[in-house]
Amino acid sequence: MQFGARFLERQQGGRGVLLGGVPGVSPGKVVILGGGIVGTEAAKIAVGLGAKVQIVDINLERLAYLETLFGSRVELLYSSSSAIEAAVADCDLVVGAVLVPGRRSPVLVPKSLVEQMRSGSVIIDVAVDQGGCVETLRPTSHTNPTYVELGVVHYGVPNMPGAVPWTATQALNNSTLPYVVQLANYGSKALEMNPALAKGLNVKDHVLVHPAVREVFPDLSK
Amino acid sequence: MQFGARFLERQQGGRGVLLGGVPGVSPGKVVILGGGIVGTEAAKIAVGLGAKVQIVDINLERLAYLETLFGSRVELLYSSSSAIEAAVADCDLVVGAVLVPGRRSPVLVPKSLVEQMRSGSVIIDVAVDQGGCVETLRPTSHTNPTYVELGVVHYGVPNMPGAVPWTATQALNNSTLPYVVQLANYGSKALEMNPALAKGLNVKDHVLVHPAVREVFPDLSK
Amino acid sequence: MQFGARFLERQQGGRGVLLGGVPGVSPGKVVILGGGIVGTEAAKIAVGLGAKVQIVDINLERLAYLETLFGSRVELLYSSSSAIEAAVADCDLVVGAVLVPGRRSPVLVPKSLVEQMRSGSVIIDVAVDQGGCVETLRPTSHTNPTYVELGVVHYGVPNMPGAVPWTATQALNNSTLPYVVQLANYGSKALEMNPALAKGLNVKDHVLVHPAVREVFPDLSK
Amino acid sequence: MQFGARFLERQQGGRGVLLGGVPGVSPGKVVILGGGIVGTEAAKIAVGLGAKVQIVDINLERLAYLETLFGSRVELLYSSSSAIEAAVADCDLVVGAVLVPGRRSPVLVPKSLVEQMRSGSVIIDVAVDQGGCVETLRPTSHTNPTYVELGVVHYGVPNMPGAVPWTATQALNNSTLPYVVQLANYGSKALEMNPALAKGLNVKDHVLVHPAVREVFPDLSK
Amino acid sequence: MQFGARFLERQQGGRGVLLGGVPGVSPGKVVILGGGIVGTEAAKIAVGLGAKVQIVDINLERLAYLETLFGSRVELLYSSSSAIEAAVADCDLVVGAVLVPGRRSPVLVPKSLVEQMRSGSVIIDVAVDQGGCVETLRPTSHTNPTYVELGVVHYGVPNMPGAVPWTATQALNNSTLPYVVQLANYGSKALEMNPALAKGLNVKDHVLVHPAVREVFPDLSK
Amino acid sequence: MQFGARFLERQQGGRGVLLGGVPGVSPGKVVILGGGIVGTEAAKIAVGLGAKVQIVDINLERLAYLETLFGSRVELLYSSSSAIEAAVADCDLVVGAVLVPGRRSPVLVPKSLVEQMRSGSVIIDVAVDQGGCVETLRPTSHTNPTYVELGVVHYGVPNMPGAVPWTATQALNNSTLPYVVQLANYGSKALEMNPALAKGLNVKDHVLVHPAVREVFPDLSK
Repeated sequence: MQFGARFLERQQGGRGVLLGGVPGVSPGKVVILGGGIVGTEAAKIAVGLGAKVQIVDINLERLAYLETLFGSRVELLYSSSSAIEAAVADCDLVVGAVLVPGRRSPVLVPKSLVEQMRSGSVIIDVAVDQGGCVETLRPTSHTNPTYVELGVVHYGVPNMPGAVPWTATQALNNSTLPYVVQLANYGSKALEMNPALAKGLNVKDHVLVHPAVREVFPDLSK
Repeated sequence: MQFGARFLERQQGGRGVLLGGVPGVSPGKVVILGGGIVGTEAAKIAVGLGAKVQIVDINLERLAYLETLFGSRVELLYSSSSAIEAAVADCDLVVGAVLVPGRRSPVLVPKSLVEQMRSGSVIIDVAVDQGGCVETLRPTSHTNPTYVELGVVHYGVPNMPGAVPWTATQALNNSTLPYVVQLANYGSKALEMNPALAKGLNVKDHVLVHPAVREVFPDLSK
Repeated sequence: MQFGARFLERQQGGRGVLLGGVPGVSPGKVVILGGGIVGTEAAKIAVGLGAKVQIVDINLERLAYLETLFGSRVELLYSSSSAIEAAVADCDLVVGAVLVPGRRSPVLVPKSLVEQMRSGSVIIDVAVDQGGCVETLRPTSHTNPTYVELGVVHYGVPNMPGAVPWTATQALNNSTLPYVVQLANYGSKALEMNPALAKGLNVKDHVLVHPAVREVFPDLSK
Repeated sequence: MQFGARFLERQQGGRGVLLGGVPGVSPGKVVILGGGIVGTEAAKIAVGLGAKVQIVDINLERLAYLETLFGSRVELLYSSSSAIEAAVADCDLVVGAVLVPGRRSPVLVPKSLVEQMRSGSVIIDVAVDQGGCVETLRPTSHTNPTYVELGVVHYGVPNMPGAVPWTATQALNNSTLPYVVQLANYGSKALEMNPALAKGLNVKDHVLVHPAVREVFPDLSK
Repeated sequence: MQFGARFLERQQGGRGVLLGGVPGVSPGKVVILGGGIVGTEAAKIAVGLGAKVQIVDINLERLAYLETLFGSRVELLYSSSSAIEAAVADCDLVVGAVLVPGRRSPVLVPKSLVEQMRSGSVIIDVAVDQGGCVETLRPTSHTNPTYVELGVVHYGVPNMPGAVPWTATQALNNSTLPYVVQLANYGSKALEMNPALAKGLNVKDHVLVHPAVREVFPDLSK
Repeated sequence: MQFGARFLERQQGGRGVLLGGVPGVSPGKVVILGGGIVGTEAAKIAVGLGAKVQIVDINLERLAYLETLFGSRVELLYSSSSAIEAAVADCDLVVGAVLVPGRRSPVLVPKSLVEQMRSGSVIIDVAVDQGGCVETLRPTSHTNPTYVELGVVHYGVPNMPGAVPWTATQALNNSTLPYVVQLANYGSKALEMNPALAKGLNVKDHVLVHPAVREVFPDLSK
């Protein structure tokens, strides 16, 4: 959301819209595609900034949960191509947050819909490295994070947390430290003690054993 | 707001929209013209019901106050004919809450704008007895509270609190009791002690003395 | 809750109480029997309207969840006949929201308790078609929604969402569309692919196969 | 409120009620007499603790302000002897917070009303040194803060902030430091520069000049 | 939290800090070790009182849940000895709320860390009867609830709810009544009908059968 | 706040801290100097982003108002050099929001305090064009908005709203349009009708009449 707000600034190529608005001027409108963890966190920040927020999701139970969480501060829409078209064509910032583990995200925002967006609007997708759900979005880098296509600012940096390494590193440590401690204390026995750890084993007795990695490097798998 | 929600029901002639929506279906959209006390209370209830709410006002300081009160839960718009047209043409419920003491409210919603509203939308005005700010709205009664014009349900009952006399009477008592007590204790001397009370004097020594009442009954004023 | 607020109005037969009260006058008091999804949604609206709300439930875990949701804005009571009697005898609006799937709801509000209620109070039950939890409540219709018994307004329309068909239809579509799409794409094979869909099968090879329907139409089941 | 919660504990002589309740058990009920700064702060804490709170005040504008502040989380009552009797007779904790500058507070809770309170209830008054608004309450000390009368725990320590000197001293410093700085920089000229400071002058040219102090020590005033 | 606030008062041996602070003076700082049910409820009250609150927990999913619950009103820290040291050394009140069913809590606050705390700070542990997570804390009683060690007030009453027996008894009844009713209706058959009840069986046919009780009284288990 | 969050990113020269933190990692700490309108709006956004926020102000009444607004979500500190030093030395982002109309802001953050800040921290001042309250901060431009001094990122763009011209222009229009309309309708008579408009008169009968402008251009004032 921090990136979205920035690239809506005029110097950054955007429409020059302040997401939170000021009293008397409409706030910016944010459409979040996907109400999972990423989409929910994005919505919290967007609401905190004062934007008008819509979340589109296909799971009615998840929408009910989000309604409990946000009450009337976020508009919750059942995903359909007509709902997405109406929402996206009239917004300032699209956040793609559709993550289908192990599969390419479906294209929810085709090129024809990007063409309908206002000039200077911004598109971000957190799953751009798995294809993303916006047809016109390609991966970019922290050095050169955006490009303009059809008048719309596209932001496609795959590793967004890399922008805040101090916070991101601690969060990563908190997640991984328990495994490191087990390995330090018990060596390879830790793999037997903890199935979650065992699932991460890549090489065993000089042989590549992780299925997904074998698929990518078939030559090393023999 | 209670009346607005009701007349949006299908049996009552409205569009059949639930103001609060349900997760996955857009909530109803309410436009409140005037952000004074009445408009603010209406907005609180509308937000409580889960509707999407816009308040239009011409006073920037009031808009700033409303922003403190509602944060991002209400969209605050500076009054202009284009802002009103965009808001009203796309809403389910218009609440007129413009009170200009002693003067007719300006017409903010002309007939041509009512024509643009969706069939089954609802219009209410709390100041209908002083003209109201909606061109097509005429006073009605609790017995026959609405009529349909240009496909839009018009509610024009002037004395809305009359629907909840138990609550309204107590509220009125709380406001008037201090004056009654003063009159009971001090008789006509209470008028000298309390200028606010004196302003309410209608007849003195058999003569009609209240300026506004004299104006209405010139024959009795001699 | 929208119906409850309406029938508390004087013209509708109620006590003339405004659920939200005004500063200085007590708000209306709402007792919700059952803290499941329906009761929780009703409580949200009642809180939004500014009423004083009590929820009675027999499940301590559910009460703990509701405490997380509402904090101190709702009073949560463990269900017992004495707790229900104390709560109901002193309230303006009773909402029955007890749903025991496939079974008649228990009678939580007997006639003797209705007799203790104030004249002009209102009773609503969302499960009136399965018997409801109020002894004196009988099903009514949208055309003639209420009757007065023991001085208390009874509202017994079974199909409440029918009042807001625009919203209700979309919500129903969102729930049923995925099944329709599967049937359209895969025909009868969809039943094999989706066990949830298969459970809804009524007639197969000219034979009535759904157990519950067979029970109702035993003659057609041969 | 911290004192109120404590003296409701059983070991402290109270009813053994937890102000916040637990899900399924009613929270304690707090009645605050007077909705000024002290009463408002007490209400905030009581709400934060999860209690059921009523504020009684005689000023309708203040009640409207409190409604903006607390919404439906506090019940606001217009002051009348019947409203006070109904509220106090049914509560666990009464907080007297009526401050009439320079005058004795009116007696809002007479002895006959204290007799109606439940055994083990608690009464506190922040203006006990100016008489307070509870007939049966007398000043006590931090060493021996409470006594029981008519079965009700009375807490009458006048200098409550003395319990938290670290916080209270800083708050006092923040209020008085600007005056000290002016005196240090400008000496007696500071009195001419700052009328607020001049109002605090007690002795001038060996003569007692402060009106209120003269009244108390007439012999020293010559 | 009610006890923590009390023992921070000067007369009770504490630093004289008001947990909620006043505008311009920092609020007290509370560190809660363990974000389970007890820690979460403590945090709610602490936030309600206006304190600055940190919760330390080792479970990332629980921290994510707490983030949903508290948003930015509570600081959530991943448990590590350095995080605990930084938090505890700079706080006014430590609440130990680590419950490892059937096992002694780990020592999270060693004596060396208590030495770093400010004089007059307070330590409470809800699991003191199972050892607690503070090295220097020993069980105390409601009659004599605290002692001072290393300048820090230690509160070690194991049965805290005993202070509010009215509330605690009702809560206990709500939890146990369903079992009592089943036993009264069905006698020993209730044990077969309800496995949860069966788990609580201590003596059967004159033999001690409950595993945990057998362990404590091995002589009676033969 | 949007700029502050950005320049804390690593690619922008900052510490790599995410203001909102993630559960388990401390959020960024923001110190706002001055609790006026600008400081209050900044605090709202910072709280919305999930940061830990302190506001320093010298006006106790304003602090009390801010306490009403933010409750415990913001720490409110009375301004003193020791309070500022403790707060600033330990924070990630300093926002200077001290506006003394017509006078240079006092230096609240001297160079010696900037030296104590962590490397990669960020300083912003909204009144940099009037000197600002940070000794080491100099005006910069939107093209080249920051420089690093003493390891701290300094952002000194005077016209921040220029980054969001769409929003800023509308807000400006809303404020100025009423004057334009009066001038268009009444010409120079508008100055007599509206004293606020008259105060803005710069040149009258070929003479420079506005006092402040005369002071800046003494040669043109003859």
